[in-house]
Amino acid sequence: MHAIELPRPEVESLRRVTRPDPAPPGERQVLVRMRAASFNFIDVAVARGFYPAADYPNVPIADGAGEVVAAGSGVRHLKPGDRVAIHPKAVWIGGRPTRERAHLMRGVTAPGSLVEYQLVDAATALKAPEHLDWAEIAALPITYTTGWSSIIAAGVTAGSTVVVLGTGGASLSTLQLAKAQGARVVVTSSSDEKIDQAKALGADEGINYRATPEWHDRILELTEGVGADLVFEAAGSATFDRSLRSVRQGGTVFTIGFRTGGMAEIDLMTVIVNGLKVIGTNTGSADDLGEAIRVIASAAIRPVIAREFGLDDVASAYTAFAEGQLFGKTVLNIDW
Amino acid sequence: MHAIELPRPEVESLRRVTRPDPAPPGERQVLVRMRAASFNFIDVAVARGFYPAADYPNVPIADGAGEVVAAGSGVRHLKPGDRVAIHPKAVWIGGRPTRERAHLMRGVTAPGSLVEYQLVDAATALKAPEHLDWAEIAALPITYTTGWSSIIAAGVTAGSTVVVLGTGGASLSTLQLAKAQGARVVVTSSSDEKIDQAKALGADEGINYRATPEWHDRILELTEGVGADLVFEAAGSATFDRSLRSVRQGGTVFTIGFRTGGMAEIDLMTVIVNGLKVIGTNTGSADDLGEAIRVIASAAIRPVIAREFGLDDVASAYTAFAEGQLFGKTVLNIDW
Amino acid sequence: MHAIELPRPEVESLRRVTRPDPAPPGERQVLVRMRAASFNFIDVAVARGFYPAADYPNVPIADGAGEVVAAGSGVRHLKPGDRVAIHPKAVWIGGRPTRERAHLMRGVTAPGSLVEYQLVDAATALKAPEHLDWAEIAALPITYTTGWSSIIAAGVTAGSTVVVLGTGGASLSTLQLAKAQGARVVVTSSSDEKIDQAKALGADEGINYRATPEWHDRILELTEGVGADLVFEAAGSATFDRSLRSVRQGGTVFTIGFRTGGMAEIDLMTVIVNGLKVIGTNTGSADDLGEAIRVIASAAIRPVIAREFGLDDVASAYTAFAEGQLFGKTVLNIDW
Amino acid sequence: MHAIELPRPEVESLRRVTRPDPAPPGERQVLVRMRAASFNFIDVAVARGFYPAADYPNVPIADGAGEVVAAGSGVRHLKPGDRVAIHPKAVWIGGRPTRERAHLMRGVTAPGSLVEYQLVDAATALKAPEHLDWAEIAALPITYTTGWSSIIAAGVTAGSTVVVLGTGGASLSTLQLAKAQGARVVVTSSSDEKIDQAKALGADEGINYRATPEWHDRILELTEGVGADLVFEAAGSATFDRSLRSVRQGGTVFTIGFRTGGMAEIDLMTVIVNGLKVIGTNTGSADDLGEAIRVIASAAIRPVIAREFGLDDVASAYTAFAEGQLFGKTVLNIDW
Repeated sequence: MHAIELPRPEVESLRRVTRPDPAPPGERQVLVRMRAASFNFIDVAVARGFYPAADYPNVPIADGAGEVVAAGSGVRHLKPGDRVAIHPKAVWIGGRPTRERAHLMRGVTAPGSLVEYQLVDAATALKAPEHLDWAEIAALPITYTTGWSSIIAAGVTAGSTVVVLGTGGASLSTLQLAKAQGARVVVTSSSDEKIDQAKALGADEGINYRATPEWHDRILELTEGVGADLVFEAAGSATFDRSLRSVRQGGTVFTIGFRTGGMAEIDLMTVIVNGLKVIGTNTGSADDLGEAIRVIASAAIRPVIAREFGLDDVASAYTAFAEGQLFGKTVLNIDW
Repeated sequence: MHAIELPRPEVESLRRVTRPDPAPPGERQVLVRMRAASFNFIDVAVARGFYPAADYPNVPIADGAGEVVAAGSGVRHLKPGDRVAIHPKAVWIGGRPTRERAHLMRGVTAPGSLVEYQLVDAATALKAPEHLDWAEIAALPITYTTGWSSIIAAGVTAGSTVVVLGTGGASLSTLQLAKAQGARVVVTSSSDEKIDQAKALGADEGINYRATPEWHDRILELTEGVGADLVFEAAGSATFDRSLRSVRQGGTVFTIGFRTGGMAEIDLMTVIVNGLKVIGTNTGSADDLGEAIRVIASAAIRPVIAREFGLDDVASAYTAFAEGQLFGKTVLNIDW
Repeated sequence: MHAIELPRPEVESLRRVTRPDPAPPGERQVLVRMRAASFNFIDVAVARGFYPAADYPNVPIADGAGEVVAAGSGVRHLKPGDRVAIHPKAVWIGGRPTRERAHLMRGVTAPGSLVEYQLVDAATALKAPEHLDWAEIAALPITYTTGWSSIIAAGVTAGSTVVVLGTGGASLSTLQLAKAQGARVVVTSSSDEKIDQAKALGADEGINYRATPEWHDRILELTEGVGADLVFEAAGSATFDRSLRSVRQGGTVFTIGFRTGGMAEIDLMTVIVNGLKVIGTNTGSADDLGEAIRVIASAAIRPVIAREFGLDDVASAYTAFAEGQLFGKTVLNIDW
Repeated sequence: MHAIELPRPEVESLRRVTRPDPAPPGERQVLVRMRAASFNFIDVAVARGFYPAADYPNVPIADGAGEVVAAGSGVRHLKPGDRVAIHPKAVWIGGRPTRERAHLMRGVTAPGSLVEYQLVDAATALKAPEHLDWAEIAALPITYTTGWSSIIAAGVTAGSTVVVLGTGGASLSTLQLAKAQGARVVVTSSSDEKIDQAKALGADEGINYRATPEWHDRILELTEGVGADLVFEAAGSATFDRSLRSVRQGGTVFTIGFRTGGMAEIDLMTVIVNGLKVIGTNTGSADDLGEAIRVIASAAIRPVIAREFGLDDVASAYTAFAEGQLFGKTVLNIDW
């Protein structure tokens, strides 16, 4: 079958290859014909060689979507023809995080989405909401799992205030999920235009951090001095200290981003005196994605797709995603 | 009545003063004759002027113990003659943290323990276990509240591994509470003698960080590569990065210390890839102390008292505590 | 000052009395001029003598609202003129439930709302959202505390399914809060008209249990066989078994009602095999009400007021509430 | 290969059969040579036909232990020769309970332990602590999973009070786990001799419910009127109401038992006024068992084995277990 391979940590090395056809599904597996994949920053980190423990050569891209073509005898929730999002954590169905569950990740340490067929544990193939198309389904796994995990970890409810940094895919998914949960959402961006787009998606407030470099003070103002319940830290070093200063007593900074750098200098006194929580994730379990999908279906959420590419333009897609500051997700349509 | 006052952030400025006698207790208050106080690092930070928002002049020292001399009509759990530990958070009985509940702290932003009588909300005066003396009761509030909070926040159970940094009062209380909860405890210290003392208190393992500067690797070895469930971070900048590297996937670094500096450079990638939690506190609620006292009573825990001073030697006590690297708590006996 | 007293457990015994004027507020107290009170079933149970441990004589009615006329020196969040809802749990600010915190309840074991002035712990007086009038503020404490507690206890999120039994005040408040949280809400009633009213308030589905006595089967149908995440059990014996059969694996039956009887026969096998949780409450803490009020303010929720009475018609109000099967809350305006 | 089959819900129908040899393990499966099985009440319910949805014919017995003889290519934590406990929930690795995860149970709706070889998902085969023999390993899954689930669900910590009803396998495992966690344990029994045996295992107090039929009053006495944090309800109808009356405000009755009947009449008023939680389970996930095994290893817990039988005496073993009121577990050694 067809596949695209990343032989070493260089985008230029990407190449089409032929891999053996997959075996028929085992008792609790499904065989999925891949239809689309979407980018996350981890894919760039893998392609550029700065993600710890990534494997090479490997089939790249963590997130993917496709159609079930065969299901094992013990699979009850899926049948051929079903459209599924494939969760990148290949063995983390749910439950306690362990190193193996967290680290075995498609596109990083296991084969990823740029392949004709994937054979996966049926519990990691989640039936897609009916209102979504292939690009939108491919956009679900990492960003919505992460966004929903942040909401649960921080105890966000109706009436909470959530701050999302920037307008990348993960931040927009958190915006949408937080709105579905009844929270008030503040988005930061360097672009008034993107702030307007975010408001059209439901954001209650926007802060242009170019115009307001002390944006954390603005968040305190917007919350009558209390601070936000959650800052979704999708940026990294450049913003981390301000993120800490933006949350309420006992509030949460949920950290997923290292785009602006992986080392952060933090003021422990802020963490200690304000009783803060800093929680990291590189994506939760398939169950977490399942919960997010339940919300997506019930609130009729549609992921924002910024750009779509074909397989002939994979390298360009990496570049566009990595440099583009795009509003929403970058998707690869899988068609050989 | 007698009191000791800190007019400005200088230990040398401490002086005896006379303050008005307290009013009789209101419906849910108790009047307490103070008998002992104990030092925590926050007291040094206040006395030296680097704790945010401390008030001057003020009666210093957060932790204290005394005897109930009068109880309001609505007080059911205390009566004259009862021995109580007074929780320093003057209005944080329990429940959601708020800035006011967290910041109104005796000895910092409200009058502290070096006074003849204190009038307090009865819910912040906790009946002491019978097996403890005045010095031991005074040693309870901050360290055991903090230690117990770390155990609950990290979900420590029987079979968990807990690392405590150093052998100050807070670390030793966490050691004792974690052992009561059935956990395995590893202590770090620069002194083999203190490690032996910690083992006599129940520690399962000790690591001399002078002899083993890469002590986080030793913790991974001791846990078959898994890492600890909780690191009780009582030190600060100097150890923070190693603390992050010592915990398991999804584990917790509970941060209370800034002795070795308040700014820490952290590797966000470790936090993200290992799904870590960093949780800060400057002490929880009176309810948290109540829970800790239940454990202390049931496991017959005795706080370790390193040194005791009289009120004539208050300044020396501050110095001894701040510089001493003592094993256990430093106590002031209150006798005018 | 004026008050209404219930000398013994008979509605007919209610009478106007004069009570001593309250003292000025202590440091953390507020003095409140009462303006309205609202009925809950507990008030009927007290007035008829079947609530355990109620005190007689007592000033009746648990829920109330009024205007702050004086605040103690230590009160920061309230000032004279503020409109407040008074939480009936007189000493349960937040934190761990204890018998004393749960049982000391205004209108039951402490003086209630039918009085000219109340002197209360400032932490139990919650500032009312600006969009509410006196009757609406008086309608908040028990029903919204209970409703919000059920949502938190059951982990209801966006996308959850919540069933509320009937259209009394507590069920309607849960309906509103669950909708604010993004959940889907199913209401049961014996009246198609009330179902329509509930849908106007946001309910997604209604089941007339007269027309559909096996309403639990209908809930399974509506959830594709999965069952609801939460059943808000406001009824009692008559419905309890069906409520158990309506929830999903691991789901919650939150029980507050005993209108249809206090003894329920339950099938333990259902509880065991489906891993259910049954959680009871007679109202949570002031903190819980505070959280609910945050939601009410942010989602602009208005309590439904079914009927209002003056103090001259207190006995009629009890009767109307107890028998009325009203849609929403019954309120007493306090004007002497 | 050899197997024992239960063709219909009658113990007398049990018979030896030959079943096809299992396939080699898939990527994440292990093939286990069975060595022992242990009885739980669910096995009796299946054999007598009163467990909902049990399948016939089936290989009976939920709990089992054996030796790994082959492991799939993706299995990292197990290798041939490892001794494992097999968790009866065939697909519930961890995470959110669903009907499928909870109901697919070996010996009930999937093939059970009385077979020569079992092919299982490697995540449901848990490496046994080294200090246990085959009978003891076979005794682990249901009782320790259930016991540990009760401790976590009720928030039992050091200093909590736990009541276990009777001295069957599940109650004794809860006793041991609760002691490892630092709790105080009270056991009830009709036999002073069994109470003495339970005390030898660590129980702090025993109540002979023949001599003290109002045993719930004794529990209140033993807790200074507060009540227990957790009652482990292993009995059923006969004790349920007293169990409810034994727990503290906000406490938990964890219900797993229906030996004395499956219908219980409960006083909703007790549940409501005391804010109780009733939580049922018929066993948790493989992750829950993994956590329990961590405790068992760290505290060197050994399951109590009451009696052992060979495969020639399977029917007698059922009878002995069902009628025996044995102290500890009944085990079948699997040797063909």
